[in-house]
Amino acid sequence: MSSSFGKIFRVTTFGESHGGAVGVILDGCPPKLRINLDLIQNELDRRRPGQSQITTPRNEDDKIEILSGLKEGVTLGTPIAMLVRNKDQKPSDYENLEQVFRPSHADGTYHLKYGIQAASGGGRASARETIGRVAAGAIAKQFLKKLFNTEIFSWVKRIHDIDSNVDKDRISLSQIDANIVRCPDEKAALKMIERIRELQKDGDSCGGVIQCLVKNVPSGLGMPVFDKLEADLAKALMSLPATKGFEIGSGFLGTYLKGSEHNDPFIKSNDINKLKTISNNSGGIQGGISNGESIDMKVAFKPTATIGKEQQTVNADGREVVMKAKGRHDPCVLPRAVPMVDSMVAIVLADHLLLNHAQCDIIK
Amino acid sequence: MSSSFGKIFRVTTFGESHGGAVGVILDGCPPKLRINLDLIQNELDRRRPGQSQITTPRNEDDKIEILSGLKEGVTLGTPIAMLVRNKDQKPSDYENLEQVFRPSHADGTYHLKYGIQAASGGGRASARETIGRVAAGAIAKQFLKKLFNTEIFSWVKRIHDIDSNVDKDRISLSQIDANIVRCPDEKAALKMIERIRELQKDGDSCGGVIQCLVKNVPSGLGMPVFDKLEADLAKALMSLPATKGFEIGSGFLGTYLKGSEHNDPFIKSNDINKLKTISNNSGGIQGGISNGESIDMKVAFKPTATIGKEQQTVNADGREVVMKAKGRHDPCVLPRAVPMVDSMVAIVLADHLLLNHAQCDIIK
Amino acid sequence: MSSSFGKIFRVTTFGESHGGAVGVILDGCPPKLRINLDLIQNELDRRRPGQSQITTPRNEDDKIEILSGLKEGVTLGTPIAMLVRNKDQKPSDYENLEQVFRPSHADGTYHLKYGIQAASGGGRASARETIGRVAAGAIAKQFLKKLFNTEIFSWVKRIHDIDSNVDKDRISLSQIDANIVRCPDEKAALKMIERIRELQKDGDSCGGVIQCLVKNVPSGLGMPVFDKLEADLAKALMSLPATKGFEIGSGFLGTYLKGSEHNDPFIKSNDINKLKTISNNSGGIQGGISNGESIDMKVAFKPTATIGKEQQTVNADGREVVMKAKGRHDPCVLPRAVPMVDSMVAIVLADHLLLNHAQCDIIK
Amino acid sequence: MSSSFGKIFRVTTFGESHGGAVGVILDGCPPKLRINLDLIQNELDRRRPGQSQITTPRNEDDKIEILSGLKEGVTLGTPIAMLVRNKDQKPSDYENLEQVFRPSHADGTYHLKYGIQAASGGGRASARETIGRVAAGAIAKQFLKKLFNTEIFSWVKRIHDIDSNVDKDRISLSQIDANIVRCPDEKAALKMIERIRELQKDGDSCGGVIQCLVKNVPSGLGMPVFDKLEADLAKALMSLPATKGFEIGSGFLGTYLKGSEHNDPFIKSNDINKLKTISNNSGGIQGGISNGESIDMKVAFKPTATIGKEQQTVNADGREVVMKAKGRHDPCVLPRAVPMVDSMVAIVLADHLLLNHAQCDIIK
Repeated sequence: MSSSFGKIFRVTTFGESHGGAVGVILDGCPPKLRINLDLIQNELDRRRPGQSQITTPRNEDDKIEILSGLKEGVTLGTPIAMLVRNKDQKPSDYENLEQVFRPSHADGTYHLKYGIQAASGGGRASARETIGRVAAGAIAKQFLKKLFNTEIFSWVKRIHDIDSNVDKDRISLSQIDANIVRCPDEKAALKMIERIRELQKDGDSCGGVIQCLVKNVPSGLGMPVFDKLEADLAKALMSLPATKGFEIGSGFLGTYLKGSEHNDPFIKSNDINKLKTISNNSGGIQGGISNGESIDMKVAFKPTATIGKEQQTVNADGREVVMKAKGRHDPCVLPRAVPMVDSMVAIVLADHLLLNHAQCDIIK
Repeated sequence: MSSSFGKIFRVTTFGESHGGAVGVILDGCPPKLRINLDLIQNELDRRRPGQSQITTPRNEDDKIEILSGLKEGVTLGTPIAMLVRNKDQKPSDYENLEQVFRPSHADGTYHLKYGIQAASGGGRASARETIGRVAAGAIAKQFLKKLFNTEIFSWVKRIHDIDSNVDKDRISLSQIDANIVRCPDEKAALKMIERIRELQKDGDSCGGVIQCLVKNVPSGLGMPVFDKLEADLAKALMSLPATKGFEIGSGFLGTYLKGSEHNDPFIKSNDINKLKTISNNSGGIQGGISNGESIDMKVAFKPTATIGKEQQTVNADGREVVMKAKGRHDPCVLPRAVPMVDSMVAIVLADHLLLNHAQCDIIK
Repeated sequence: MSSSFGKIFRVTTFGESHGGAVGVILDGCPPKLRINLDLIQNELDRRRPGQSQITTPRNEDDKIEILSGLKEGVTLGTPIAMLVRNKDQKPSDYENLEQVFRPSHADGTYHLKYGIQAASGGGRASARETIGRVAAGAIAKQFLKKLFNTEIFSWVKRIHDIDSNVDKDRISLSQIDANIVRCPDEKAALKMIERIRELQKDGDSCGGVIQCLVKNVPSGLGMPVFDKLEADLAKALMSLPATKGFEIGSGFLGTYLKGSEHNDPFIKSNDINKLKTISNNSGGIQGGISNGESIDMKVAFKPTATIGKEQQTVNADGREVVMKAKGRHDPCVLPRAVPMVDSMVAIVLADHLLLNHAQCDIIK
Repeated sequence: MSSSFGKIFRVTTFGESHGGAVGVILDGCPPKLRINLDLIQNELDRRRPGQSQITTPRNEDDKIEILSGLKEGVTLGTPIAMLVRNKDQKPSDYENLEQVFRPSHADGTYHLKYGIQAASGGGRASARETIGRVAAGAIAKQFLKKLFNTEIFSWVKRIHDIDSNVDKDRISLSQIDANIVRCPDEKAALKMIERIRELQKDGDSCGGVIQCLVKNVPSGLGMPVFDKLEADLAKALMSLPATKGFEIGSGFLGTYLKGSEHNDPFIKSNDINKLKTISNNSGGIQGGISNGESIDMKVAFKPTATIGKEQQTVNADGREVVMKAKGRHDPCVLPRAVPMVDSMVAIVLADHLLLNHAQCDIIK
């Protein structure tokens, strides 16, 4: 199990990196939603390998095929199945990997857990699995946009030690996609690209931080106890490959403040369905429930585990060996992870929107 | 909904802070497990209000009553229902709160979502809700201890800006409980206690970071995609009140490293069911699955929202008002949050242990 | 697991027949629903043991205690915990049962599955477990009644071979409760009562059929594939103790008809939200979805397994023995099962109402 | 939602009858299970349209394509995605159906629920949806066979009023598949086939009863309360198209017996993991848990709703019209429903096997 996410707006993905196809079933999508199919493909293109000089050269066009659930571009309310064929498979690249465990990769733990592994590549641990998430997320985004004009902006905030300076009030998608590293601070972006290329030449890799801001959030999403909105967002984002940390609002830095400094004072709101705060250390969520302010999150992505340098490791027999990976890999996952973050956030919000509607919008 | 957690080892809590009782149903616990009931009460005592000078003076003895699921201290495999009566209720303290929204508290969002609120106190947002989690977690801990000698250690790593220095290899429960702030670095602990008391006198509050280390973890726990072990741990811990951030292994700091620095080299393991690494930036989890090394996490807790200082806010009619809270509250939630972190981690691990056993230990 | 039912309107029960208490947590109930508490107690009184000469003499007043989720009789949208203390426990009656398996009872299978059993009585297999279902069902009924004036009528249709003749158009609750066997055909009821008392004197037992009719059903409840409305109703009712069969609409008898005889012709409906049919072989459900006509079901209940006659059986050691049960038991479960059927049907409909509202009432 | 079934061994289907493809994702299947792919195709061939003179002439070869989850025929423990392309689509046959509701079909309720419908054919209500179930069921069968030599036999017991006489002790798959109606009583089978062909010529249809017997069932499957094994079997089978009733063991007829006649006396068992009974009115399940005896069920299937005769109905505007269906349809669904029953039973048992293993086979 484990390949499903969401309670009502529910996503189930399938596919190994070097099998026949990867894809997704999105169940529970409301009927009568007109889908712009180009927006789905556009998101897949944003996560596609080979899109720029700083991503893996694996060449996949990742054209989406929709098998069910739509009639002339409108949702039927039935499962929407979507798939992408795997094309540029080079299992030979991975031949020596199969029995040698790449350090900090999933090879070893899959071997221990399942006692068998996909023929080559990362199997379910490959970022190709996220194709299904991004396709479903592209539908979730359109649903949220239609109902509440909700907009989700993710961008690369930091690469290695190169931080950026972004004006959250003026963020836009075109700004984010203006460069290949997806950082809206142009100066920082240039440095980031340079750093990634340097490390790439050196057979090394780097990580960083993606920030995500959601505007025009309806209030009331999330639930008091285990299914707090930030808890489900944390799970969603920590389920992406290579993530090591999650912050909502003030995050770890906020713990250096006193309560009197950290609390967000309320002021009069023009919208009776929303609360309005002066500061937003809460990150748009209080008591697990959205208050209507922007949701503000950060996610840490570690440096890519697969690198071209020699590393000490063991093989499946437990013997110590030295390895040097050949497979095509990203020197830095963050530029391609931007649409993945967008998508997981969209799926969480769409699901909570339906859950809240079910319970709290039925007795007036 | 939202009051249930876990797939097989499944916890459902109930209760408002000022209602008749709070409690939990733990369903799916394996039969034939001998429970030490004192260990359940002991964990509740660790989270109990009024336990020291730096916690809320609300006086609850929090004696657990077990209604079902045990026979002479041994689990039947049927739901274990446990409850604690609320005793020291002072709704009058909260009388003026009902319609005035405490900044950064759940009052406002509950009002927007439900259109009705518990008579007083925090309702489901109160830390009293965690009694059920801690009681169930105390059983999960005994289950893990029995099967794999697994041990979970949570402690206060930082309060406000006072950090500690702890030798993870030598951590012990007695060391953690040796002082009222639950920081095993005695010198830091004294400073922390002093800082908390100062802020308390000033009607203010502070937050900090709890670290959690799990030793003797069986490998193979967690699943590849959405239900990665770190994703479920993140959700579990971000569902605790006042949490703002989660880190596994190297966390946000790890993003300043190169891949060649961050990867954990494998070396020969003496236990064929576990992997062994030189460093542990992975935090014991790779590809979403435990590798057998210690699981290492950090959680950020914000400063308590309810403070004794005057604050700007609005009331339920949307009018701006100034408030000063009277209710009894903790100046710092971390000392009492330690057993909550323990418990949520134990519940996640117990559930994943059963899930892994179900799917991966059936065909030999 | 197994002690939870429903996806959004979700019920979790606990308790052994001879433990401290039995009860339920109802999670997901919409907020702002005014509950008539007397109606909950009234349903419990309808299922209570000792209510008449044809039920078990075990004397329990089954007074409900509500621990959370309500404020002055109005739902908060948070978990509603309800419990009933066990009082008239006579474990001594069951002393010789513990290791001797009553034929066709759960003793043997519990022993095989869990390797341990509740101290006495039926444990979770006891009809006392249904107290939680009936309490939650009483809330579901009020919810359905308020929103759609939906009414659920269950009655005893047949006892042993004594069938009844009931005018479904004129059925009423007072008619059903007019006699202790809960059959609205007074003549048949008298014969049924006589039959039950005869068998009771003889140390024997009998079964029969309960019919359930739901009026004023909103259309659109149920989902196309696995969660068809009749599938969830079947599961709900087959989860009650002692059930052996389920029929929707024409049931098994309908299979003797040709398609041209069985199909329900549509005619013009005055309510644009409902379909109208001349006949109702469909039982109010087509393609798994309610069409607005009355839902019509039948459930077979076997004769009570625990009887006062000598029976051949084995004990826990596998040795063949002869036993004669002493415990107090119902000679016929149907009169007390009527409110259980009502309740399970109400819970299924309430849950599907919320599910349909979530997905299909959000985009207009 | 609604397109998923099972908790650990979990099936999710997708696809409309006239869309691009229909298929399934099977998640949670244990790793290291060698799959005979021919057995999957064989089951699909048993449910395939056009397989004989008494099934719909729609011509689909229903060749299965497996996209993920296997490596050289062995399960990886990851999602197994399987699909079948729709080929022989004749939407024109259904052109006049789209806005006219076939009596007792899903057209009307889908229209009310979703406000939009698949372009033609039955959409998700089509029996084509069951392709995914049968493919997943074929894997479940192999899993059960491998672990416990469990065998599932479903056959046509009655068509219209033509009943059969079958020796359950000697039932075999070759006997069942020896004729096109799948009734192992050859004489009755001939009459059944004749009856179906007569009704077919007449533009009419018929229903009947399928019986299912499971041999070599492990004990301990099923759970005490809501997830009783018979409850989940009832749901699984009542989720198949055209079902109207379900019986376990003695079913409705058993209600004519006294307790002393109905109880199944236990006798000494040679297998300490199973109970042994003289009779089997329990149908192999007691207290919701399998006892090791054969599981014995019956399912009522109504006559096919789509018939070639003129019928009174309404269209989407609510106006009364007369219709006569043109689409290709089965005069009797039972012969093709046999593998569907097999499959759903196999999926329920596989899931409960994993659930029981998870909870009850971990503490020895």
